[in-house]
Amino acid sequence: MIKVAVIGYGNVAYHLIEHLADSPKINLAFIYSRTTKIDRELPPGCKLTASLEDIRDVDLAIIAVTDDAIAAVSCQLNVPLVVHTSGAVPMNALQNTTSKGVFYPLQSFSKVKPVRFSEIPICIESEHKSDRVLLKQLAAILGAQTYAITSEQRTYLHVAAVFANNFSNHMYAIAHEICNAHKVPFEVLQPLIQETAAKVAVLEPKKAQTGPAIRKDEKTLAKHLHLLDTNEQEIYRLLTKSIQNYGN
Amino acid sequence: MIKVAVIGYGNVAYHLIEHLADSPKINLAFIYSRTTKIDRELPPGCKLTASLEDIRDVDLAIIAVTDDAIAAVSCQLNVPLVVHTSGAVPMNALQNTTSKGVFYPLQSFSKVKPVRFSEIPICIESEHKSDRVLLKQLAAILGAQTYAITSEQRTYLHVAAVFANNFSNHMYAIAHEICNAHKVPFEVLQPLIQETAAKVAVLEPKKAQTGPAIRKDEKTLAKHLHLLDTNEQEIYRLLTKSIQNYGN
Repeated sequence: MIKVAVIGYGNVAYHLIEHLADSPKINLAFIYSRTTKIDRELPPGCKLTASLEDIRDVDLAIIAVTDDAIAAVSCQLNVPLVVHTSGAVPMNALQNTTSKGVFYPLQSFSKVKPVRFSEIPICIESEHKSDRVLLKQLAAILGAQTYAITSEQRTYLHVAAVFANNFSNHMYAIAHEICNAHKVPFEVLQPLIQETAAKVAVLEPKKAQTGPAIRKDEKTLAKHLHLLDTNEQEIYRLLTKSIQNYGN
Repeated sequence: MIKVAVIGYGNVAYHLIEHLADSPKINLAFIYSRTTKIDRELPPGCKLTASLEDIRDVDLAIIAVTDDAIAAVSCQLNVPLVVHTSGAVPMNALQNTTSKGVFYPLQSFSKVKPVRFSEIPICIESEHKSDRVLLKQLAAILGAQTYAITSEQRTYLHVAAVFANNFSNHMYAIAHEICNAHKVPFEVLQPLIQETAAKVAVLEPKKAQTGPAIRKDEKTLAKHLHLLDTNEQEIYRLLTKSIQNYGN
């Protein structure tokens, strides 16, 4: 039985609580929320608190608050192991005097959508090897796969995720805008979007590259530029150049 | 029973033949291939030819050759209805003197991967209403959904597809490169990529936008730029600016 405190009640905390509360192998002893208001029933034996000093006698505290608040929260915790769940913050940003670690589930969370941890990779890091065992156990209880990722690697992973998630989503947003402006239902593109995303699970993205840029199909490239507004043109030109430099 | 000729033996033709040959509602009467070599058994009653003049007595010919060859092929065809399967070529590029149309399956095809037409939207267009009925029947036999899309709309759809497919894939390629350079397994990002693609089926991409750009998180943006090479920086800056201009 692992005795846990969850610090925070944002999207990541919400789903962690959801899954930890349900597990017979976990004793979710504390939830910390500044407002002491949460929109769910407390699991039996769990205490809701707005005071970090209340949190005692647990195996670890999982900090799932905004990046900027992690340091300030951690220095008020007095538990054997403190981990945060952020992709962007190094482990040593934690200010607790006990053991430190990271438990970073790499997925985009929203409260309205249920989460299956079995489909979410968890990047773990710890000062001490024994803590890594505990974090792996915790992930296994959630049904998640773990990856040992250092703070430096996680920094790069976080910027890679901006490309893979935020920027690819912006490509969809531009496609959506173009469809809208010409009364084409965006759903027509959905299977292509899905297929493109699925393909890179089996094929290196560079090798999966198709289209006029990689073909150096100058006629189509010129035609496309002609159809776009200034912002879209700038993006089209830069990404075409970058695709051609990458090759495949 | 619809009597069909398929012109070409590229990726699209390959999968069309595969599915048309199997249907009891289709008589696949001709396959045209310049080399008269195809890597499959001919369906019963189907004639393989390298001469377009051979093709007679069918309801329609489906041209699935490279964009540049469509006009030249079409003017040699003497069948009641000629359609092409290209996203980038207007219907009127067809040079046959009989009826013209378009039957454009919007998906990225490769010969090695089986195709389910039930998951592929087909954009149709025709000069005459009666032909549209025939093209819809054909799509229904393949199990595909159809969308009535004009040549002008298709031009825009095609450039939108470059953003949704080629450019989003390039975002994956850059993410892959960053992961590789820092010995992070790219598979860690796969669930995030999948989730991002799945989300826009239920939520407008602009509304689904997350990350440091849309949050105007200047601290993280500066940190990320510092981690990237010149080409990546240029893309990061431009897409961040574009995301911020789009809003959500």
